[in-house]
Amino acid sequence: MNRRIVLAARPAGVPAPENFARDDQPTGAPAEGQFLVRNLYLSVDPAQRGWVQASANYSQAVALGDVMRSLAVGMVMESKCARIAVGERLYGWFGWQDFCAADERAVICRVDPRHGPDSSALGIFGINGVTAHLALTEIGAPRNGETVVVSTAAGAVGSIVGQIARSLGAYVVGLTGSDEKVSQCVGEFGYHAAANYHKLTSSEMAALCPRGVDVYFDNTAGGISDHVWPLLNVRGRIIQCGTAAIASWNPPPLSARREREILTKRLRHEGFVIFDHIARFEEVIAGLAAKVKAGSIVYREDIEEGLDRAPQALAAIYRGENRGKKVIRLEGV
Amino acid sequence: MNRRIVLAARPAGVPAPENFARDDQPTGAPAEGQFLVRNLYLSVDPAQRGWVQASANYSQAVALGDVMRSLAVGMVMESKCARIAVGERLYGWFGWQDFCAADERAVICRVDPRHGPDSSALGIFGINGVTAHLALTEIGAPRNGETVVVSTAAGAVGSIVGQIARSLGAYVVGLTGSDEKVSQCVGEFGYHAAANYHKLTSSEMAALCPRGVDVYFDNTAGGISDHVWPLLNVRGRIIQCGTAAIASWNPPPLSARREREILTKRLRHEGFVIFDHIARFEEVIAGLAAKVKAGSIVYREDIEEGLDRAPQALAAIYRGENRGKKVIRLEGV
Repeated sequence: MNRRIVLAARPAGVPAPENFARDDQPTGAPAEGQFLVRNLYLSVDPAQRGWVQASANYSQAVALGDVMRSLAVGMVMESKCARIAVGERLYGWFGWQDFCAADERAVICRVDPRHGPDSSALGIFGINGVTAHLALTEIGAPRNGETVVVSTAAGAVGSIVGQIARSLGAYVVGLTGSDEKVSQCVGEFGYHAAANYHKLTSSEMAALCPRGVDVYFDNTAGGISDHVWPLLNVRGRIIQCGTAAIASWNPPPLSARREREILTKRLRHEGFVIFDHIARFEEVIAGLAAKVKAGSIVYREDIEEGLDRAPQALAAIYRGENRGKKVIRLEGV
Repeated sequence: MNRRIVLAARPAGVPAPENFARDDQPTGAPAEGQFLVRNLYLSVDPAQRGWVQASANYSQAVALGDVMRSLAVGMVMESKCARIAVGERLYGWFGWQDFCAADERAVICRVDPRHGPDSSALGIFGINGVTAHLALTEIGAPRNGETVVVSTAAGAVGSIVGQIARSLGAYVVGLTGSDEKVSQCVGEFGYHAAANYHKLTSSEMAALCPRGVDVYFDNTAGGISDHVWPLLNVRGRIIQCGTAAIASWNPPPLSARREREILTKRLRHEGFVIFDHIARFEEVIAGLAAKVKAGSIVYREDIEEGLDRAPQALAAIYRGENRGKKVIRLEGV
């Protein structure tokens, strides 16, 4: 049997455990051109919230009763696909389940076991690390001496952004959700300064950024961002990589219009979705792996055990309870 | 005597005639390194609103009692500057007055009389034409078959944007402030479709853009833009070139937060201020002049007579009453 976690009810806003259910089914056999993987680790990502909304987003909504969409690392058990070999480890769209029969379109990349443990293919060597590198360097493009602010600074993406920004010579300021994570930002992730956004005031934010803000790597939107925007310097760049602080966009909450400051400061505000950049994963992962090996990037994983923990793990990341990349290790791995 | 129009009182929002006063003074003589111009035409620009606000903007505020800052075309009457010759026509920061003693830092470029009448150096061959070309082609970068929407479509900038966008193969939709200007957009400025934004509904806007919107050249912000944003396609680009529809930004009006659509559609929203691009004026003007000569760009000027008309002319452009680039011809030109 294939244990599966399916979408049972569409959440209004953040998905909770009761939005999911177990629905085990016989394990399917791969058709011609397909392969069968056994999942080893499942990815738990803030973006999953968007995939279960009925409203149009950048991807098709997960249908009610379908296996919850997720990235995973799986080992190939059987293959009817010429380019996929039994025993290979793949990173792809294998869902919250034990087994997945899929074709090559589901694969993001092969897992290179020299880079790190299998779980690392989901985070630092998966969407989080590649997002951090590409969005920061290509949209943000911080120059030596500029100030970079990161919201969710200790998260799976933010913790890597901070380290890359520092390695580029930026002054790096992190905003995160607890005093413990503030310490982690400064002690582990290379931030020059950090603050707990639950307590933040505009004057404290200004004091953290004495030369203003040149790049804002925004994973939250909302009131946290409203402290940062007034500090943006002329030609500042805002990377919109997530909107974690807004529980529901239906209807969108109100805020001060930003057209005037975008105009007068010649700001550039741009959205980033990692799935536009699949072709670049191998190249970027190789670069990240070299930095990890050299010790210039550290990463943290927050591993929970067992398929049934996935819905609770997802809910926990919206509460900011994870310490590093949240992954589920499947039983027997 | 040098007739001068000075800033008499700081406006709250849009400047009105009572914010200005005549304050004539003896004509100054040029110091060493300076020249004296006699102004021929004065520029009247929406951006002047920003220059008289006390709050920080992209330029220093005009001080109370100072000559109103403006671009102008002036003829050199006297020169103590080696690179400026008597009889030359210059485009520069000469203010709402008859005469100006200035140095080279006040000059944007020389006026090339082969391009057109002196007045054209203020609009099509001045900030408006260069803005239209650079902001559209470098931030918007419309591709063949894409849809470009322009707010204030019949204005000094918008009317040129529409024609350049069409020449690049875009489907071009104009939003403007009267039915008469709607006709002008379609009949003169090359728009495929246009609408009066005072009457516009979201469903009409959607009908005007059957393939969505790829580039939004925004000169208005506000409710007009709120009709356009929901139609933006994935990887849409929004050029913030003006905010004419918002009378006051203190405090900024509220609107729906845009972070989510910027993220999910990977939009890019960027501000443009022409004064960042002074070094490119000659090159861009030469290109525009060739297109005007070839008949592929037409332009309209709305010329008023006499220095004292300048304050009323400025107020009129915020009411949308101008037909093309508003300029003041000084007495005796």
